[in-house]
Amino acid sequence: MKMKQLLLVKLIFCFALSFGGLGLVQASDLLPSWNEGKARQSIIDFVAKVTREDSPDFVPPAERIATFDNDGTLWSEQPMYFQLMFAIDRVKALAPLHPEWKDKEPFASLLKGDVNTALAGGEHAMLEIVMATHAGNTTEEFETIVKDWLATARHPTTKRPYTEMVYQPMLELLAYLRANGFKTFIGGGIEFMRPWSEKIYGIPPEQVIGSSIKVKFEMRDNKPVLIRLPELDFFDDKEGKPVAIHQQIGRRPADAAMDHGWAGSAICALCPPHRCRA
Amino acid sequence: MKMKQLLLVKLIFCFALSFGGLGLVQASDLLPSWNEGKARQSIIDFVAKVTREDSPDFVPPAERIATFDNDGTLWSEQPMYFQLMFAIDRVKALAPLHPEWKDKEPFASLLKGDVNTALAGGEHAMLEIVMATHAGNTTEEFETIVKDWLATARHPTTKRPYTEMVYQPMLELLAYLRANGFKTFIGGGIEFMRPWSEKIYGIPPEQVIGSSIKVKFEMRDNKPVLIRLPELDFFDDKEGKPVAIHQQIGRRPADAAMDHGWAGSAICALCPPHRCRA
Repeated sequence: MKMKQLLLVKLIFCFALSFGGLGLVQASDLLPSWNEGKARQSIIDFVAKVTREDSPDFVPPAERIATFDNDGTLWSEQPMYFQLMFAIDRVKALAPLHPEWKDKEPFASLLKGDVNTALAGGEHAMLEIVMATHAGNTTEEFETIVKDWLATARHPTTKRPYTEMVYQPMLELLAYLRANGFKTFIGGGIEFMRPWSEKIYGIPPEQVIGSSIKVKFEMRDNKPVLIRLPELDFFDDKEGKPVAIHQQIGRRPADAAMDHGWAGSAICALCPPHRCRA
Repeated sequence: MKMKQLLLVKLIFCFALSFGGLGLVQASDLLPSWNEGKARQSIIDFVAKVTREDSPDFVPPAERIATFDNDGTLWSEQPMYFQLMFAIDRVKALAPLHPEWKDKEPFASLLKGDVNTALAGGEHAMLEIVMATHAGNTTEEFETIVKDWLATARHPTTKRPYTEMVYQPMLELLAYLRANGFKTFIGGGIEFMRPWSEKIYGIPPEQVIGSSIKVKFEMRDNKPVLIRLPELDFFDDKEGKPVAIHQQIGRRPADAAMDHGWAGSAICALCPPHRCRA
């Protein structure tokens, strides 16, 4: 990952309330794969500024919230969103149960291996694929399906598991921020990320926010379950990002910390460099 | 608060993933207002069982999630939900801007001080009151309104601020659980609780889950804001509770820990006593 790209990663820092104090952890130990340079230095300066108690920009630990996008930031999104790769594999796996898909777009094209034609239908086509592959099971069943897929699926180019297609510098950045009292959150497809976010990123399920579909409580064979419904609950994109941060974290960037407020927290490119860009 | 009531509080423990180890903190220091008795002992036994590394019921710290209802559990809900008290006061404050309310239920009755008639319209009436009083402003404005109200409003019987109408034994229980490695969450009206949950309960905004209304990102006077819309986003009641725990925490009770699974985590009365009741 190039430094220039890192300047543009959708790394978000938001701040708000209060607590104790932690010493600054030396970056040299925790950012070994970062080149000496402007990007690395701006991270170190940022962390120093907000963690030194005598700094005018000091942020108490309880307010040190760092949120990261997953796709394209923590792991690759090439040649396409990995969650879409998952959905395509699910379409293939479920095809025998859906003979009608052979003549119905976007499924017909997907089953022929023609992803471009399948996705030509835009957001509507994408939603149809997601709903057909992400709903209809219990939350436990879906978790198992995701785990099984990640254990066996391989990236088309590198042939490595998708969970190895993560950016090493970003793993180091996550650890560096946590060592300096930050609570790290990731945004993306919630139920697709929760089964592995703790193991791969050290981010527990309750700090995974973003897109989800609706679920419904039900008793099945005398056991209570949550059924995943083919209905979007929340779509975490563009203006959805600050909404997700508000709904699921509830801390707003302090004015002083981020002039662009919610927009700044949503899209890092809008933020003043001294607080937001890494 | 009587011990018998405490046996029935909607105190929920859910468990799932993994981490290090913390010693058991002595209850005698942290539960001073609890009578020696069965309820107190069952809490101490429960915590001992899940925190001792050699225990078959050991739960790693990262999985120690305790969720509490707010209304009727952490603070009083008599003579009616405090959030409804807030809404009624808001109807009165907003009445000059809504001359039509004088002839329109449920507002007309509320303005005459007749809450019972106003609420005779059931859930629909309640929703109308909530939407008229909780929407139409930015998230920052709403937070200020809640804070101002809490600073000035007084409980009708005790004449004390509502934030003093909390149960001392429950504050101690929250602290006791946290001292033993639990992460504490509360459920209720999210935006109504977040402005004060950290100060009163030690629960940060990101651990407040439950009911909310939709918000919309907007630019106002060149500043990005989130506008509160008169539309329910999520209603955290009955079957909504396990859904909220799933969506917003994402940790499921382990089978061994809670036979009734999600229902158990939603309604404590359904849980096996060895894991759920305090």
